[in-house]
Amino acid sequence: MIEIGLSDLDDIALGATFLGTGGGGDPYIATLMTRRAITENGPVQMLMPEELDDDALVIACGNLGAPTVAIEKIMGADQPAAAVLALEKHLGRQADALIAFEAGGSNSMMPIYIAAMLGRPIVDADGMGRAFPELQMVTFSVYGASSAPFALASEHGDTTILEIDDDARAEYIARGIAIRMGARSAMASYPMDGKTVQRVAVPFTTTLCQAIGANLRESRAGNQDPFDELIDMLAMTHYGHAKVLISGTVTDLMRDTEGGYAVGKVIISNPEEPSLEIQFQNEFLRARQGGELRAIVPDLVCILDSEMAQPITTERLRYGQRVTVMAVSAPPIMRTDKALAVFGPKAFGLLDDFVPVEDLD
Amino acid sequence: MIEIGLSDLDDIALGATFLGTGGGGDPYIATLMTRRAITENGPVQMLMPEELDDDALVIACGNLGAPTVAIEKIMGADQPAAAVLALEKHLGRQADALIAFEAGGSNSMMPIYIAAMLGRPIVDADGMGRAFPELQMVTFSVYGASSAPFALASEHGDTTILEIDDDARAEYIARGIAIRMGARSAMASYPMDGKTVQRVAVPFTTTLCQAIGANLRESRAGNQDPFDELIDMLAMTHYGHAKVLISGTVTDLMRDTEGGYAVGKVIISNPEEPSLEIQFQNEFLRARQGGELRAIVPDLVCILDSEMAQPITTERLRYGQRVTVMAVSAPPIMRTDKALAVFGPKAFGLLDDFVPVEDLD
Repeated sequence: MIEIGLSDLDDIALGATFLGTGGGGDPYIATLMTRRAITENGPVQMLMPEELDDDALVIACGNLGAPTVAIEKIMGADQPAAAVLALEKHLGRQADALIAFEAGGSNSMMPIYIAAMLGRPIVDADGMGRAFPELQMVTFSVYGASSAPFALASEHGDTTILEIDDDARAEYIARGIAIRMGARSAMASYPMDGKTVQRVAVPFTTTLCQAIGANLRESRAGNQDPFDELIDMLAMTHYGHAKVLISGTVTDLMRDTEGGYAVGKVIISNPEEPSLEIQFQNEFLRARQGGELRAIVPDLVCILDSEMAQPITTERLRYGQRVTVMAVSAPPIMRTDKALAVFGPKAFGLLDDFVPVEDLD
Repeated sequence: MIEIGLSDLDDIALGATFLGTGGGGDPYIATLMTRRAITENGPVQMLMPEELDDDALVIACGNLGAPTVAIEKIMGADQPAAAVLALEKHLGRQADALIAFEAGGSNSMMPIYIAAMLGRPIVDADGMGRAFPELQMVTFSVYGASSAPFALASEHGDTTILEIDDDARAEYIARGIAIRMGARSAMASYPMDGKTVQRVAVPFTTTLCQAIGANLRESRAGNQDPFDELIDMLAMTHYGHAKVLISGTVTDLMRDTEGGYAVGKVIISNPEEPSLEIQFQNEFLRARQGGELRAIVPDLVCILDSEMAQPITTERLRYGQRVTVMAVSAPPIMRTDKALAVFGPKAFGLLDDFVPVEDLD
């Protein structure tokens, strides 16, 4: 058990933006909320998955909605916890710990906020190991945990409980509810016992966020090459293979909003090599260079500004930005055949087979 | 307590189509389902509101969705009851009786079907006294009962429970869920005690449906004028003022689908008087003749074919049809200021004040 205090939050938020791979929403507001909650209620306890009792009740939580709305329409202070409370009431039992369903973006911070508000511990793990656009794209589903029962809460305190035994249908219905809750709802779902969490979750992703954030912060402060430093650090984790794909300038950007997603591609060029083309749907999905595959989902493609190594989200890409693109291997639990069926290239309509980034040139 | 058996169903369905005032959906399939359920499980017990114990648990039930979808996509046999069972489970208590929320159209029959499937009695009352397009347009809401908690069930057995203390917001969220359940979901809501039902429900509307249906059937069999007979019969009920507005031919019809509603107007003409213009939104809302108001919501405007006195729904109107238009006074509980605020002319965007049909020429 370790504690998350005020001094940890900025690092976690920065690392979460990196793991967001272009999506997941900016954790800025969630971090402000968490700062206040921890100031008022004290630090949050964090358990390793191994520390959970076999029969502990763990609830996944976070937000469901459009990140673009989140920028203008701030969560009510009580809204995130309301979904957890509704699910606990429905289950007739208090959660022994909370878990993030998505380690990338603002949903990495939300469980810490809720934990601080409710006085529950969190688990150092999540269901995506990064950000994905759809809720059922979690290792929880891949390895047999069910999203049901599933709670949503609106800014008005309205709550809904879904009992749906198919996670893709649950996502579809929940998304419809979230839209009518103002494209911004709090969710609590995937109630699991501790033993299941140990089997189905991507472990250590909160500490990974914090380590990435701390690494970038220290590189900036120490005038070291942040990309080299990060690659060295990640080599010691289960996200072990990281590399720079290109450093260059954004020379073309096509971005559309389709079906609620930011969809498009971005071209990054420099004079010394063929341009890199990155296709995205909220998150960066695939990088190709000179017709050759360089990295593909679920491996992580991250675009950072070349100077400060600040991760850039799809909606903040601009023509002329000077960026460095990194690719990072997803952990083994996210690369099995079962996992690739749910969030591999085909799940995003890409025709490529998955090839691990370390096997690509 | 009286019983609803097989021989009662066709009359109830015919009367319900009349009370549908152009909307509410065709009760044909619901009647077939109910016929089978009663054949297998025996007749359904029906209580007058006065027969309910003060603390009896009464649950309103029926379908939520688009009638146009209902024609092609038939309910699963277990779907309607699933919403009631989900709400009973959530409340931790079995309903002592079921009640229709809408007496017009197929939702008059659904509670009888569910009652036959589950072995529960129904109450001879409902929340609309006719058909309306939105769920919160019920006397239950008008007089202070809450739709929460509110259950929906899909054809897959998926269920949701809504805890929303504002009935218009509940309708909005529930409608969104119903759309994603395939525009066809079963609902159970407005859990009330017996004393509340006696105060907030429109009484005797199932027996009224049956009486209207029987009256039309007997007129057809006996070669009597069905409109005269029906007017005489209704005079003895709380829908006491009925009259024929015009007999003529459909000479113009403008019909659009807007926001999920069938919206438009129909003109009925004969050589002896000015044409009658009826405006509709799923249901017929207002009849005007030569610029003068003849009837307006919540009073009932019904279009029947002139030969068989078969009620015609908005989607089955056609150019050239020979029709007779009737107007019927809504019962007093539907004409209070509180009721008019929820389902009077303004609720449908009409600028007219409500004038009782018996005060119009």
